[in-house]
Amino acid sequence: MRDSYREQLESVVDDMVRLSQLVSTATRNASQALLTADLQLAEQVISDDVQIDNLAAELEQRCFGLLALQAPVAGELRTVIVAVRLLADFTRMGDLAAHIAKIARLRYPDHAVPADLEPNFNRMSEVAVRMIGEASDALRNRDTGQARRMAERDEEMDDLRSSQFRLMLADDWQYGVEAAVDVALLGRYFERIADHAVTFGREVVYIVEGELSGDEVWS
Amino acid sequence: MRDSYREQLESVVDDMVRLSQLVSTATRNASQALLTADLQLAEQVISDDVQIDNLAAELEQRCFGLLALQAPVAGELRTVIVAVRLLADFTRMGDLAAHIAKIARLRYPDHAVPADLEPNFNRMSEVAVRMIGEASDALRNRDTGQARRMAERDEEMDDLRSSQFRLMLADDWQYGVEAAVDVALLGRYFERIADHAVTFGREVVYIVEGELSGDEVWS
Repeated sequence: MRDSYREQLESVVDDMVRLSQLVSTATRNASQALLTADLQLAEQVISDDVQIDNLAAELEQRCFGLLALQAPVAGELRTVIVAVRLLADFTRMGDLAAHIAKIARLRYPDHAVPADLEPNFNRMSEVAVRMIGEASDALRNRDTGQARRMAERDEEMDDLRSSQFRLMLADDWQYGVEAAVDVALLGRYFERIADHAVTFGREVVYIVEGELSGDEVWS
Repeated sequence: MRDSYREQLESVVDDMVRLSQLVSTATRNASQALLTADLQLAEQVISDDVQIDNLAAELEQRCFGLLALQAPVAGELRTVIVAVRLLADFTRMGDLAAHIAKIARLRYPDHAVPADLEPNFNRMSEVAVRMIGEASDALRNRDTGQARRMAERDEEMDDLRSSQFRLMLADDWQYGVEAAVDVALLGRYFERIADHAVTFGREVVYIVEGELSGDEVWS
């Protein structure tokens, strides 16, 4: 029973990694659909989102089963709690990728992103996908050094978003209100995906080191 | 010990209600700061957000303590798990209220919301504050009927947001790109607060009835 319990716990972590890879794929595909006005790929991201939701729901049930039947303590309790919390982040990141794809679909066959902002969004996408991948690797390898690097990576995302605002609010903005609204929301979605990746990294540190905001009093 | 455990559990629920009231106040004040260009009130919402974060962090520690030391099962486990999950929602709602206040502060002494959209945002604020209050009452009274009403209330929020887009993207939009970007983001923040209130309602149903997405297999 105890062995099987450990195996169940390990398989939860493995599936968390798998779920984060689905989120990474969704983000990458949504970005590509957006930047190339690829309607088919946008539709795929939107319809595939249910896979992320289903895996998250299934994992949640397994976590609840572990809590109810095994009453884990200390590091194992932390792992299960973090899994339950991170499932909400992963589900949300999938939703955000779908939101990006929906804007691509709404503007098709036009490009939602004005030409001047393509390099910016291309880089946003690279940073977001890289952050998810690094946090995912950090979870798999229990690598707190890598997990801690997320906040640093996020600074570039903030800079990219500031650049977008500067371009949109400059006197020579030539793309009109609709494009500005799209850019504001798209920039927000990418920024939020990166924020969730920062949370992901923080939770990995918490699993490994058992400290969150420096005040663990319960294990 | 068992009595004290029940008291701890009850006090977690009481403090969840209290936390949701702080979130409601933050949302109401942020809306008022936005609609009246009240810099002082905006600053207050932004600085008070730490109270929500601190109460949430403290409650989280108490939930972890209950899980680690009491190994709750069935309905009590559900209550603790829901509390842990909802803390993330409440923290996020507080952040969103602060985001609204920050836009009010950024545009002060101007009004961030164009005059034509004031009634719309006024109603968004009313709907959001009402949803939080109703979900909070539903938690206190274990009232699943009220908790289930959140999704219905949210439909008005979606309609209000659609109206905003219609106004912004109409040919006679006279407020320029900056105001449109502000409206797009502000509308998004209110919409997200309402989404979290819908989640809040769903979690209350789950605490009381033990069913989430109709597939509870673990208690």
